[in-house]
Amino acid sequence: MTVITLTTDFGMDDWFVGTIKGVILRLAPEARIVDLTHEIPAGSLRAGAFALMAGYSFFAKGTIHVAVVDPGVGSGRRAIAVQTARYYFIGPDNGVLSFALRHEKIVAVRELANDALFLKPVSRTFHGRDLFAPVAARLARGLAFAKLGPPVQDPVRLPWPELRSDRNGIAGEVVHVDRFGNLITNIDAEMVRSLPWATPAVVVKGRRLCAVAECYAAVPAGDAVAVVGSSGLLEIAVHRGSAATQLGLTVGSPIKLRAD
Amino acid sequence: MTVITLTTDFGMDDWFVGTIKGVILRLAPEARIVDLTHEIPAGSLRAGAFALMAGYSFFAKGTIHVAVVDPGVGSGRRAIAVQTARYYFIGPDNGVLSFALRHEKIVAVRELANDALFLKPVSRTFHGRDLFAPVAARLARGLAFAKLGPPVQDPVRLPWPELRSDRNGIAGEVVHVDRFGNLITNIDAEMVRSLPWATPAVVVKGRRLCAVAECYAAVPAGDAVAVVGSSGLLEIAVHRGSAATQLGLTVGSPIKLRAD
Amino acid sequence: MTVITLTTDFGMDDWFVGTIKGVILRLAPEARIVDLTHEIPAGSLRAGAFALMAGYSFFAKGTIHVAVVDPGVGSGRRAIAVQTARYYFIGPDNGVLSFALRHEKIVAVRELANDALFLKPVSRTFHGRDLFAPVAARLARGLAFAKLGPPVQDPVRLPWPELRSDRNGIAGEVVHVDRFGNLITNIDAEMVRSLPWATPAVVVKGRRLCAVAECYAAVPAGDAVAVVGSSGLLEIAVHRGSAATQLGLTVGSPIKLRAD
Repeated sequence: MTVITLTTDFGMDDWFVGTIKGVILRLAPEARIVDLTHEIPAGSLRAGAFALMAGYSFFAKGTIHVAVVDPGVGSGRRAIAVQTARYYFIGPDNGVLSFALRHEKIVAVRELANDALFLKPVSRTFHGRDLFAPVAARLARGLAFAKLGPPVQDPVRLPWPELRSDRNGIAGEVVHVDRFGNLITNIDAEMVRSLPWATPAVVVKGRRLCAVAECYAAVPAGDAVAVVGSSGLLEIAVHRGSAATQLGLTVGSPIKLRAD
Repeated sequence: MTVITLTTDFGMDDWFVGTIKGVILRLAPEARIVDLTHEIPAGSLRAGAFALMAGYSFFAKGTIHVAVVDPGVGSGRRAIAVQTARYYFIGPDNGVLSFALRHEKIVAVRELANDALFLKPVSRTFHGRDLFAPVAARLARGLAFAKLGPPVQDPVRLPWPELRSDRNGIAGEVVHVDRFGNLITNIDAEMVRSLPWATPAVVVKGRRLCAVAECYAAVPAGDAVAVVGSSGLLEIAVHRGSAATQLGLTVGSPIKLRAD
Repeated sequence: MTVITLTTDFGMDDWFVGTIKGVILRLAPEARIVDLTHEIPAGSLRAGAFALMAGYSFFAKGTIHVAVVDPGVGSGRRAIAVQTARYYFIGPDNGVLSFALRHEKIVAVRELANDALFLKPVSRTFHGRDLFAPVAARLARGLAFAKLGPPVQDPVRLPWPELRSDRNGIAGEVVHVDRFGNLITNIDAEMVRSLPWATPAVVVKGRRLCAVAECYAAVPAGDAVAVVGSSGLLEIAVHRGSAATQLGLTVGSPIKLRAD
């Protein structure tokens, strides 16, 4: 009972995701399909790559992760599958897989070039249904990875926003705003643990915003707090409120850590 | 492991869809349930009929398609099940099944009149849970189709918006706006293939809008293009943009095809 | 094939719900997971408690209901599991389970204190994934209930909004607005059946609004009507319209029943 996860920008208003599942279950009736999310903003490769990175590692070994944010569908862009030590990843070769792959040991990358595996006729606008779904289903049924197509040497990678640090502090940025308005940054738990200051503080727009604490409830309702969140990244929250709304920050907003 | 699909206007904010699934799994624990969509605009029979038509055919033979857009629930409207050469369809007899059935060979139609099959007490406001869900589950478990109730001769059909053509061109309309803002029309792939002009063009509001091409990426980002989309219907898109927003068109807007 | 239901305020825009399912399926690959809803307003215990109460009883005996609306996550609040005559309930001990439990025969309540059962490391911000999901999965696999932790004597209960009645009528309130704009009240079917008046009427803002009828279609489109809805509670609807929008009422709005 292999698990296949889906991460897309197809939304839930149309029949798109349903038909992807129909195609998968036709070929692999015993597969378990889990939606990671379908609410990636339309065409946002970075948001899709981030969601996949945040979620993929909580699934069982052998899980097949399909990510379809595909603004170049029908053009010349390649489709790929990546085998890592623990998982398979399938999607367009536009970087949507690349944030997750930063954390995985890559075993093999293949181009999806064997059109005997696809749903015919292959549309020019919906490879999620006609190409990625049947390939995922066939892998779930045990198809040899090498049958997918020729090896790929240079899959597209999106640039991860790196931290910059000097003696005054560490400069990062907001990489995701979640449903609660929490501002997830590119500062990871390991970095937070290795900070040289006893009491680090978050600086936003040049002003000290809040301390780094253990949980949201460390501050009174309505106050800001920074915690290492469930994705292993530092996030800025407002206890029982929305940091995004209250602080006016969004994806790309710069934030700093310094001694309090 | 029969697949049961659900197409409704119940949305995902309440517990409605969850309880439908609870009822199905209580009676048919091995059934696989797939959401086609639950975001049909409340009470819109045409939108529900269109979504079902666009999605149903990608599922395995034997799949049971349940569509519940049911503004007349609790009144005298009939509930029906339709057996076709490949599938079962279940829903209120108000036309919500009818667009899909235009493409299917109908074998039998029955009224859901055998109340021994229903969840008791049957509410007057939620036949999705109390009537359609248990009937779908029992069919999945092998119940004979004729046990559902008496034959129905004249299921309700919604009028499909037909094309009009003259020597100047073909007049159609927008029948769905998808999540990306693509404008799906009632002009099908076969019609596009049989056009007498080497280079057909789309006319909107009396002005030439764009050519018919193979994929979104055939034009620069921000430009309009018409392609045969994944539902087999001509759709007007804006490459990496929203045609609905940019062109100010919606369901029912007239469009024309003529020689470029 | 135990069913596990999920009721949360995590929304569907992020990867949160997907990772909960990943953790469950890693431990209990054969479990069936059903979303009751994930669109509880962020942090609203009453809305979560109401959705769970409205939906839980339609599932098979033995179903495990997980409800995570958890604004105090990471603070000292307890996590609990409740065994009733028919079901298991799992969630934070903040009252989110309590409306459902009003209708169930409680067999045992345990604190989730056995951290050998949790996903390590346990985050301070996402017990849905790290604590409630693995406990649900292990119960589905047959773990003895007593292994969860020590007994709990006094689980937190939210106050249910009680009716007040005098000789002039019955005073209740709106407890939920559903996706169609129907106003669900705290007046239950039994109360409606036992009314002393031949023709009861609903009074809103001091004015007679409508009669109590059998179904939405008992009145012309656009008119208000009160019916006992699918949750067994009296609800005020506008036939083919939105009562919430048309009447300007919301959760907490007072309503009255009196003789017509």
